[in-house]
Amino acid sequence: MKTKIYYHHTDCGGVVYYANYLKFLEEARTEFLEDKGIFIKELIKNDSALVVIRQEIDYKSPAFYGDTIEVKTSLSNISRTKIEFEYRIINQHAKTISTAKTTMACVNSNLKPKAIPGHIQEILSRI
Amino acid sequence: MKTKIYYHHTDCGGVVYYANYLKFLEEARTEFLEDKGIFIKELIKNDSALVVIRQEIDYKSPAFYGDTIEVKTSLSNISRTKIEFEYRIINQHAKTISTAKTTMACVNSNLKPKAIPGHIQEILSRI
Amino acid sequence: MKTKIYYHHTDCGGVVYYANYLKFLEEARTEFLEDKGIFIKELIKNDSALVVIRQEIDYKSPAFYGDTIEVKTSLSNISRTKIEFEYRIINQHAKTISTAKTTMACVNSNLKPKAIPGHIQEILSRI
Amino acid sequence: MKTKIYYHHTDCGGVVYYANYLKFLEEARTEFLEDKGIFIKELIKNDSALVVIRQEIDYKSPAFYGDTIEVKTSLSNISRTKIEFEYRIINQHAKTISTAKTTMACVNSNLKPKAIPGHIQEILSRI
Repeated sequence: MKTKIYYHHTDCGGVVYYANYLKFLEEARTEFLEDKGIFIKELIKNDSALVVIRQEIDYKSPAFYGDTIEVKTSLSNISRTKIEFEYRIINQHAKTISTAKTTMACVNSNLKPKAIPGHIQEILSRI
Repeated sequence: MKTKIYYHHTDCGGVVYYANYLKFLEEARTEFLEDKGIFIKELIKNDSALVVIRQEIDYKSPAFYGDTIEVKTSLSNISRTKIEFEYRIINQHAKTISTAKTTMACVNSNLKPKAIPGHIQEILSRI
Repeated sequence: MKTKIYYHHTDCGGVVYYANYLKFLEEARTEFLEDKGIFIKELIKNDSALVVIRQEIDYKSPAFYGDTIEVKTSLSNISRTKIEFEYRIINQHAKTISTAKTTMACVNSNLKPKAIPGHIQEILSRI
Repeated sequence: MKTKIYYHHTDCGGVVYYANYLKFLEEARTEFLEDKGIFIKELIKNDSALVVIRQEIDYKSPAFYGDTIEVKTSLSNISRTKIEFEYRIINQHAKTISTAKTTMACVNSNLKPKAIPGHIQEILSRI
C-alpha cells in the first residue's frame, strides 16, 4: 500500500496535514482485508459494518510533497465484536513517519453493536 | 456565509487548495436555500435530490491562512429540472478571490432526472 | 466553536467521516488559543510552530448531515516543549459524539524541537 | 492514472463528493507532466509555479465506493504564460464519469504572472 504525496495531502506548514493520515489508514486496512477476502461491500449485504471507535496516531517525522509513503498494516487484536489494526507508515527512505492503531466495532445498519459474522471471525483468526 | 481559513483548507503552496473552494460553495448554497425554506433533507423525503452536474470556477486571487472569506450567492437561472447558482468569493479586504457557477439537476433516489418538486419551483421563482 | 455538518464532512456510510473530526479539533484549538491572545501566525514570526505529535480520539456516537456539533476544548497539560489539549464534541442534543486528546510540540522552522516561547508559556500557565 | 474509490472520497449521498474529483485531476496532471520530465518541485527551484486559474467540470455519471476510476489527461492548449489540460474520467466499465478542463498560469514565488520557463515550453510544444 504505497501512496505518493500530492498538494491535496499537504497544508501551508509544508507537510502532510495530520488528518489526512487517517485516509491512508483507511485505504491500508481496506486493502489488508480485501487481500484476505473480506470486502466491506459484502459485509453491508450481511447487515454488518465495521466502524472506527478509537484511533491513536503518533506523528514521528513529517512527510513532504513528492514523498512516497508506505503503510504497513497488521491485525493486532480480535474479539467477538471488535478488531484492532496496527500500522507503521514509512517514507521512501524507510524512515518511520508515523505509527497508529485503529479499533473497529461491528455494527448493524442501525449502528447498533453486533457480533462479527462467523465467516469473517474465521478468516481473521487464521491471520 | 463567512468562513475562516484554517490549516486544513490550505496546501504546501501556502494558499487555499483549489478543490476546497467547492466545499465553501456547497456550504453557501445550502445556507442560501435554507434561508428560503428549502432543506436538502426534506427534499430527500420527497424522493428528490439536487446533484451538481457542472461546476465552473475562476481563481482570481489566492486566500491565505487566517483570512476570512465570504461567499455571496445568487440564483442565476432555474428551469423545470435544473437550478444554477452564481457566487462571488471575497476576502476580509473585499478583494474578489474567486467567481463560480454551479448547475444542479433534480434526480430521484435512483439518480434518474426528474422535475423539481412544485413547491420548490414556486419558492425559487419568487427569489 | 460550533460547526454545522455539510455533505463534504460525511461519507457513504451516512455519517461524518472519521478523519474530518481532526479538522474540527484544529479549528477548536486555534480558536481556544486565539481567544487567549496566541496566534499561530505570530508564533511563526518567532521561528516557532506547534506541530501535532500525538492524537487520540474515541468515536462514541455518529454525527449526521444537518447536525450542529460543538467542540469543548481545554488545556490538559503543559510542559517546557509540549502542550496537551482535551476535547469533548457534543451534538445539538448535548449528546457526546466524541472525546479526544492532542499533544503538540514546539518546533523551529526546520521542524527541530525547541522550548515554547516565554510569553506563550506565561499565557498558558495562567489558564 | 487509476484510483480506487474509498470511503474518504464519498459523501452521504452515496457517491464521490464533487470537490474530490479535483484531487484526482491534480494527481493526473502531475503524473502527465512528470511522465514528460516536468517536475513541480524543479519548477519551484526556478522561481516558477503553475497555479490553477480556471476549472470547469461536467459530472455525467456518479462514481461509487469500490469503483476504480481512470483519468485520461491531455494537453489542449499552451501559450507563453498558460497551459490548458483536458481530462476524461472513466470507471471500470469504461463509462464516462466526468469531463473537465483546467487552465493553469505560471507565476513566480510572489504569485505574480511570468512566462513559462523556456525548457518547459519546449517540452510541452513537442507533446
